[in-house]
Amino acid sequence: MNYQELYKQIVAKKSFLCVGLDPDMAKLPQHLLSCEYPIFEFNKAIIDATAPYAVAFKPNCAFYEAEGLDGWKQFMMTVEYIKKNYPDILVIADAKRGDIGNTAKKYAQCFFKSMDCDAVTLAPYMGADSINPFLEYDGKWAVVLALTSNKSADDFEQLSSFDENDSDEDFDVEPLFMRVIRKVMTFGSKDNIMFVVGATRPEKLAEIRDVCPDNFLLVPGVGAQGGTVADVAKYGLNDHCGLLVNSSRGIIYASSGEDFAEAAAAAAKQLAGEMSVVL
Amino acid sequence: MNYQELYKQIVAKKSFLCVGLDPDMAKLPQHLLSCEYPIFEFNKAIIDATAPYAVAFKPNCAFYEAEGLDGWKQFMMTVEYIKKNYPDILVIADAKRGDIGNTAKKYAQCFFKSMDCDAVTLAPYMGADSINPFLEYDGKWAVVLALTSNKSADDFEQLSSFDENDSDEDFDVEPLFMRVIRKVMTFGSKDNIMFVVGATRPEKLAEIRDVCPDNFLLVPGVGAQGGTVADVAKYGLNDHCGLLVNSSRGIIYASSGEDFAEAAAAAAKQLAGEMSVVL
Repeated sequence: MNYQELYKQIVAKKSFLCVGLDPDMAKLPQHLLSCEYPIFEFNKAIIDATAPYAVAFKPNCAFYEAEGLDGWKQFMMTVEYIKKNYPDILVIADAKRGDIGNTAKKYAQCFFKSMDCDAVTLAPYMGADSINPFLEYDGKWAVVLALTSNKSADDFEQLSSFDENDSDEDFDVEPLFMRVIRKVMTFGSKDNIMFVVGATRPEKLAEIRDVCPDNFLLVPGVGAQGGTVADVAKYGLNDHCGLLVNSSRGIIYASSGEDFAEAAAAAAKQLAGEMSVVL
Repeated sequence: MNYQELYKQIVAKKSFLCVGLDPDMAKLPQHLLSCEYPIFEFNKAIIDATAPYAVAFKPNCAFYEAEGLDGWKQFMMTVEYIKKNYPDILVIADAKRGDIGNTAKKYAQCFFKSMDCDAVTLAPYMGADSINPFLEYDGKWAVVLALTSNKSADDFEQLSSFDENDSDEDFDVEPLFMRVIRKVMTFGSKDNIMFVVGATRPEKLAEIRDVCPDNFLLVPGVGAQGGTVADVAKYGLNDHCGLLVNSSRGIIYASSGEDFAEAAAAAAKQLAGEMSVVL
């Protein structure tokens, strides 16, 4: 899915909602646990219920990998189900992979060829070698970690950084996450690179928009983690929206009963409503 | 497996060799391709042939994930085979995972409970939240990326960094990888934390040993990538060895014919011989 197609979806649905599919076996509604594929059944219902309000789904690999081979299978079933039934919705594999050379190529093959995900989240630590192999696929996206919403993001992401070997830079000092954004932007374009920026630091969004006006930002942390759609929009919107705001727990666990899908739809509709106001 | 048990293996085998199991379907010996599980058959032969010379095996997730569900299954079969037949050998899942909170817990569950790997490689970008959930398992290890051997490691790992909010630090400037090592060391101990340091920068190993005298270092990059055992040992050895030197391609693809296992054994024996000299 390319930039224009994504933007078209956003305009059509008046929403920039990404629904995070993080199915924890301990939190699934009881009546699903006897199914052969409870995670997939859960996801299918959530997907059908929230698709009218969502422009992206983001299954988080860890929740599937933790369930062994059956979990991994249900990850694949989930991706296939979305691509078949909702081909206009972006599928982001939340994998946070980060490796180099042949290994990075294999990860790209896994998510873009073996499966047909549209995007994959990546860690930038090892530099261009971890990102570039994912940019060789037309219409696919690398979604690179920049400034995350967790407490220990301060450990490294916010360190003051400079490159003492680059004389052109005049030793300009900036936070590591900003250096990551500026550098990774040069690997590709707004058509194949997004950045992850947590909603819990909306004031940082404005700073990021100054150096990165065009790329989409994937923003987790709305809802359970304390960020609001209004704040994120205020600092993060650009002339093509430029935002995908993710909610996981607030939607998929809106109810733990048999009405979980209806409750998820209501929660997604609520967020999409807030988004339509700011668009 | 704990620190003492690992050291005991090293002394017994006079080796600190880690064999990287990166089975690329395009490079497997032809005669294995008709097997139901060609990757597993390949690994089994390599494991049996090199076990006398190796203290660790490191299957790299990407090569398995790229082959879909069957690939993931063969990853699990490989881990199980090693644990059952060679319980004294460390199994490092080369996964380079890096996520936070519940997600990090799920990854730890995947590699340490669903499977019985001894160690998993991790990316440090998001800080303590990405590492700590793995340290809650006794006898298991977090192997954290510090300074890697790829070209673009310079993009971020070598940036000069300081924490302007920490007045105790007097704005001391150091490379990001060094900051990662110093910080991550405080999350655990030599009993549950190792660092990845590429063999292609042996002079950096000496600097790292100054700040990190006790932790094991996992060192890739010997052989195909240009590092030598002698150089790595010169700068990296400590009084409990403190090194695991990895070789993948140089061992597993030593021959592409029916004699691949014998050739792998010979390559592993050669490296182990170099190691016994320096120990």
